[in-house]
Amino acid sequence: MANKDKESKSIVAQFWATMQTNDFREAAQLLSEDFVLEWPQSGECIRGPDNFAALNEHYPAARRWRFTVLRILAEGDQVVSDVGVTDGEITGRAITFSTVREGRIVSQVEFWPDAFEPAEWRAHWVERL
Amino acid sequence: MANKDKESKSIVAQFWATMQTNDFREAAQLLSEDFVLEWPQSGECIRGPDNFAALNEHYPAARRWRFTVLRILAEGDQVVSDVGVTDGEITGRAITFSTVREGRIVSQVEFWPDAFEPAEWRAHWVERL
Repeated sequence: MANKDKESKSIVAQFWATMQTNDFREAAQLLSEDFVLEWPQSGECIRGPDNFAALNEHYPAARRWRFTVLRILAEGDQVVSDVGVTDGEITGRAITFSTVREGRIVSQVEFWPDAFEPAEWRAHWVERL
Repeated sequence: MANKDKESKSIVAQFWATMQTNDFREAAQLLSEDFVLEWPQSGECIRGPDNFAALNEHYPAARRWRFTVLRILAEGDQVVSDVGVTDGEITGRAITFSTVREGRIVSQVEFWPDAFEPAEWRAHWVERL
Protein backbone atom coordinates (compact mmCIF):
# COMPACT_ATOMS: atom_id res chain seq x y z
CA MET A 1 0.00 0.00 0.00
CA ALA A 2 1.44 3.39 -1.00
CA ASN A 3 2.14 6.07 1.61
CA LYS A 4 -0.68 8.24 0.31
CA ASP A 5 -3.18 5.38 0.76
CA LYS A 6 -1.92 4.74 4.30
CA GLU A 7 -2.18 8.40 5.22
CA SER A 8 -5.73 8.72 3.87
CA LYS A 9 -6.80 5.57 5.64
CA SER A 10 -5.27 6.67 8.91
CA ILE A 11 -7.22 9.97 8.84
CA VAL A 12 -10.52 8.15 8.31
CA ALA A 13 -9.66 5.57 10.99
CA GLN A 14 -8.92 8.47 13.34
CA PHE A 15 -12.25 10.07 12.41
CA TRP A 16 -14.21 6.95 13.42
CA ALA A 17 -12.11 6.52 16.60
CA THR A 18 -12.99 10.11 17.54
CA MET A 19 -16.68 9.57 16.70
CA GLN A 20 -16.49 6.68 19.16
CA THR A 21 -15.73 9.17 21.99
CA ASN A 22 -19.04 10.89 21.06
CA ASP A 23 -17.18 14.20 21.05
CA PHE A 24 -18.52 15.34 17.69
CA ARG A 25 -16.76 18.74 17.92
CA GLU A 26 -13.47 16.87 18.20
CA ALA A 27 -14.36 14.62 15.25
CA ALA A 28 -15.25 17.73 13.24
CA GLN A 29 -11.62 18.91 13.66
CA LEU A 30 -10.74 16.22 11.11
CA LEU A 31 -13.04 17.81 8.52
CA SER A 32 -11.95 20.62 6.19
CA GLU A 33 -13.68 24.00 6.37
CA ASP A 34 -15.35 23.27 3.01
CA PHE A 35 -16.36 19.75 4.06
CA VAL A 36 -19.50 18.34 2.42
CA LEU A 37 -21.34 15.19 3.52
CA GLU A 38 -23.92 13.81 1.08
CA TRP A 39 -26.65 11.28 1.78
CA PRO A 40 -27.81 10.29 -1.72
CA GLN A 41 -30.68 8.21 -0.33
CA SER A 42 -32.51 11.25 1.08
CA GLY A 43 -30.92 13.98 -1.01
CA GLU A 44 -29.58 15.58 2.17
CA CYS A 45 -26.27 17.40 2.32
CA ILE A 46 -24.41 18.74 5.37
CA ARG A 47 -21.92 21.55 4.77
CA GLY A 48 -19.06 22.42 7.09
CA PRO A 49 -17.69 20.96 10.33
CA ASP A 50 -20.03 23.04 12.54
CA ASN A 51 -23.20 21.71 10.94
CA PHE A 52 -21.76 18.22 11.10
CA ALA A 53 -21.07 18.49 14.84
CA ALA A 54 -24.40 20.19 15.64
CA LEU A 55 -26.43 17.61 13.71
CA ASN A 56 -24.75 14.75 15.55
CA GLU A 57 -25.20 16.47 18.90
CA HIS A 58 -28.94 16.88 18.28
CA TYR A 59 -29.85 13.30 17.36
CA PRO A 60 -33.13 12.88 19.26
CA ALA A 61 -33.12 10.66 22.34
CA ALA A 62 -29.83 9.02 21.43
CA ARG A 63 -27.74 7.39 24.09
CA ARG A 64 -24.00 6.92 23.68
CA TRP A 65 -23.13 5.93 20.10
CA ARG A 66 -20.72 3.13 19.41
CA PHE A 67 -18.99 2.82 16.04
CA THR A 68 -17.44 -0.45 14.85
CA VAL A 69 -15.22 -0.26 11.78
CA LEU A 70 -15.99 -3.53 9.97
CA ARG A 71 -13.90 -2.78 6.90
CA ILE A 72 -11.81 0.06 5.59
CA LEU A 73 -9.82 0.36 2.41
CA ALA A 74 -8.00 3.15 0.63
CA GLU A 75 -6.79 4.08 -2.82
CA GLY A 76 -4.92 7.36 -3.00
CA ASP A 77 -7.07 10.07 -1.43
CA GLN A 78 -10.20 7.86 -1.50
CA VAL A 79 -11.23 5.78 1.50
CA VAL A 80 -14.24 3.50 1.90
CA SER A 81 -15.37 2.45 5.34
CA ASP A 82 -18.09 0.02 6.41
CA VAL A 83 -19.11 0.92 9.94
CA GLY A 84 -21.66 -0.52 12.35
CA VAL A 85 -23.39 2.17 14.42
CA THR A 86 -25.54 1.63 17.50
CA ASP A 87 -26.65 3.36 20.68
CA GLY A 88 -27.79 0.01 22.07
CA GLU A 89 -31.32 0.46 20.73
CA ILE A 90 -31.03 1.89 17.22
CA THR A 91 -28.70 -0.08 14.94
CA GLY A 92 -27.40 1.17 11.60
CA ARG A 93 -24.67 0.59 9.10
CA ALA A 94 -22.81 3.38 7.31
CA ILE A 95 -20.93 2.80 4.08
CA THR A 96 -18.90 5.97 3.59
CA PHE A 97 -16.80 7.09 0.63
CA SER A 98 -14.42 9.72 2.06
CA THR A 99 -11.98 11.97 0.21
CA VAL A 100 -8.93 13.14 2.15
CA ARG A 101 -6.80 16.20 1.42
CA GLU A 102 -3.90 17.58 3.49
CA GLY A 103 -4.78 15.54 6.55
CA ARG A 104 -8.50 16.34 6.57
CA ILE A 105 -11.64 14.82 5.17
CA VAL A 106 -13.00 17.15 2.48
CA SER A 107 -16.05 15.14 1.43
CA GLN A 108 -18.08 12.08 2.25
CA VAL A 109 -20.79 10.30 0.32
CA GLU A 110 -22.55 8.09 2.81
CA PHE A 111 -25.09 5.27 2.48
CA TRP A 112 -27.30 3.83 5.23
CA PRO A 113 -28.55 0.47 3.94
CA ASP A 114 -31.61 -0.72 5.89
CA ALA A 115 -32.80 -4.28 6.29
CA PHE A 116 -35.12 -5.71 3.63
CA GLU A 117 -37.11 -8.92 3.32
CA PRO A 118 -35.74 -11.85 1.28
CA ALA A 119 -37.81 -12.15 -1.91
CA GLU A 120 -39.85 -15.29 -2.61
CA TRP A 121 -39.07 -15.47 -6.34
CA ARG A 122 -35.34 -16.05 -5.75
CA ALA A 123 -35.57 -18.43 -2.78
CA HIS A 124 -34.59 -21.38 -4.98
CA TRP A 125 -31.06 -20.03 -5.56
CA VAL A 126 -30.48 -18.45 -2.16
CA GLU A 127 -29.38 -19.63 1.27
CA ARG A 128 -29.95 -17.80 4.54
CA LEU A 129 -26.96 -16.37 6.38
CA MET B 1 -1.52 2.08 -7.45
CA ALA B 2 0.24 -1.27 -7.09
CA ASN B 3 -0.08 -3.96 -9.77
CA LYS B 4 -2.17 -6.15 -7.49
CA ASP B 5 -4.67 -3.33 -6.94
CA LYS B 6 -4.88 -2.68 -10.69
CA GLU B 7 -5.43 -6.33 -11.46
CA SER B 8 -8.19 -6.70 -8.86
CA LYS B 9 -9.89 -3.54 -10.06
CA SER B 10 -9.72 -4.64 -13.67
CA ILE B 11 -11.47 -7.96 -12.87
CA VAL B 12 -14.32 -6.18 -11.10
CA ALA B 13 -14.58 -3.60 -13.90
CA GLN B 14 -14.76 -6.50 -16.36
CA PHE B 15 -17.47 -8.13 -14.23
CA TRP B 16 -19.70 -5.03 -14.41
CA ALA B 17 -18.98 -4.59 -18.12
CA THR B 18 -20.12 -8.19 -18.67
CA MET B 19 -23.20 -7.69 -16.48
CA GLN B 20 -24.02 -4.80 -18.82
CA THR B 21 -24.38 -7.29 -21.72
CA ASN B 22 -27.06 -9.06 -19.61
CA ASP B 23 -25.30 -12.34 -20.32
CA PHE B 24 -25.23 -13.50 -16.71
CA ARG B 25 -23.66 -16.87 -17.59
CA GLU B 26 -20.75 -14.96 -19.11
CA ALA B 27 -20.46 -12.72 -16.04
CA ALA B 28 -20.47 -15.84 -13.86
CA GLN B 29 -17.28 -16.96 -15.64
CA LEU B 30 -15.52 -14.27 -13.62
CA LEU B 31 -16.63 -15.87 -10.35
CA SER B 32 -14.68 -18.66 -8.63
CA GLU B 33 -16.32 -22.06 -8.11
CA ASP B 34 -16.57 -21.34 -4.37
CA PHE B 35 -17.93 -17.82 -4.95
CA VAL B 36 -20.22 -16.45 -2.24
CA LEU B 37 -22.38 -13.34 -2.53
CA GLU B 38 -23.84 -11.98 0.70
CA TRP B 39 -26.68 -9.48 1.12
CA PRO B 40 -26.39 -8.50 4.79
CA GLN B 41 -29.61 -6.46 4.62
CA SER B 42 -31.81 -9.52 4.02
CA GLY B 43 -29.52 -12.23 5.33
CA GLU B 44 -29.47 -13.82 1.87
CA CYS B 45 -26.46 -15.60 0.47
CA ILE B 46 -25.88 -16.93 -3.08
CA ARG B 47 -23.33 -19.71 -3.48
CA GLY B 48 -21.56 -20.54 -6.72
CA PRO B 49 -21.57 -19.09 -10.25
CA ASP B 50 -24.56 -21.19 -11.38
CA ASN B 51 -26.89 -19.91 -8.68
CA PHE B 52 -25.65 -16.40 -9.38
CA ALA B 53 -26.46 -16.67 -13.10
CA ALA B 54 -29.82 -18.40 -12.56
CA LEU B 55 -30.98 -15.86 -10.00
CA ASN B 56 -30.16 -12.96 -12.33
CA GLU B 57 -31.86 -14.71 -15.26
CA HIS B 58 -35.06 -15.15 -13.25
CA TYR B 59 -35.59 -11.59 -12.04
CA PRO B 60 -39.34 -11.21 -12.53
CA ALA B 61 -40.56 -8.99 -15.37
CA ALA B 62 -37.20 -7.31 -15.78
CA ARG B 63 -36.29 -5.65 -19.04
CA ARG B 64 -32.69 -5.15 -20.08
CA TRP B 65 -30.53 -4.12 -17.13
CA ARG B 66 -28.06 -1.28 -17.42
CA PHE B 67 -25.17 -0.96 -14.96
CA THR B 68 -23.33 2.32 -14.46
CA VAL B 69 -20.10 2.18 -12.47
CA LEU B 70 -20.13 5.43 -10.49
CA ARG B 71 -17.03 4.71 -8.47
CA ILE B 72 -14.55 1.90 -8.07
CA LEU B 73 -11.48 1.63 -5.89
CA ALA B 74 -9.09 -1.14 -4.97
CA GLU B 75 -6.65 -2.04 -2.26
CA GLY B 76 -4.80 -5.30 -2.80
CA ASP B 77 -7.38 -8.03 -3.44
CA GLN B 78 -10.26 -5.86 -2.16
CA VAL B 79 -12.39 -3.80 -4.55
CA VAL B 80 -15.33 -1.55 -3.76
CA SER B 81 -17.72 -0.53 -6.49
CA ASP B 82 -20.67 1.86 -6.42
CA VAL B 83 -22.96 0.94 -9.28
CA GLY B 84 -26.26 2.35 -10.52
CA VAL B 85 -28.62 -0.37 -11.77
CA THR B 86 -31.78 0.15 -13.79
CA ASP B 87 -34.02 -1.61 -16.29
CA GLY B 88 -35.64 1.72 -17.15
CA GLU B 89 -38.38 1.23 -14.55
CA ILE B 90 -36.75 -0.19 -11.43
CA THR B 91 -33.74 1.82 -10.21
CA GLY B 92 -31.25 0.58 -7.64
CA ARG B 93 -27.77 1.21 -6.37
CA ALA B 94 -25.34 -1.55 -5.45
CA ILE B 95 -22.36 -0.94 -3.18
CA THR B 96 -20.26 -4.09 -3.52
CA PHE B 97 -17.18 -5.18 -1.60
CA SER B 98 -15.50 -7.79 -3.84
CA THR B 99 -12.51 -10.00 -3.06
CA VAL B 100 -10.43 -11.15 -6.04
CA ARG B 101 -8.14 -14.17 -6.18
CA GLU B 102 -6.27 -15.52 -9.22
CA GLY B 103 -8.26 -13.51 -11.70
CA ARG B 104 -11.69 -14.35 -10.29
CA ILE B 105 -14.08 -12.85 -7.79
CA VAL B 106 -14.27 -15.19 -4.79
CA SER B 107 -16.69 -13.22 -2.64
CA GLN B 108 -18.93 -10.19 -2.61
CA VAL B 109 -20.70 -8.43 0.22
CA GLU B 110 -23.31 -6.24 -1.40
CA PHE B 111 -25.56 -3.46 -0.12
CA TRP B 112 -28.67 -2.06 -1.80
CA PRO B 113 -29.37 1.29 -0.12
CA ASP B 114 -32.95 2.43 -0.74
CA ALA B 115 -34.25 5.98 -0.65
CA PHE B 116 -35.37 7.38 2.70
CA GLU B 117 -37.14 10.58 3.75
CA PRO B 118 -35.12 13.52 5.12
CA ALA B 119 -35.80 13.82 8.87
CA GLU B 120 -37.46 16.93 10.29
CA TRP B 121 -35.31 17.13 13.45
CA ARG B 122 -32.11 17.75 11.47
CA ALA B 123 -33.48 20.12 8.83
CA HIS B 124 -31.75 23.10 10.48
CA TRP B 125 -28.27 21.78 9.65
CA VAL B 126 -29.02 20.20 6.31
CA GLU B 127 -29.33 21.37 2.71
CA ARG B 128 -31.09 19.54 -0.10
CA LEU B 129 -29.03 18.17 -2.96
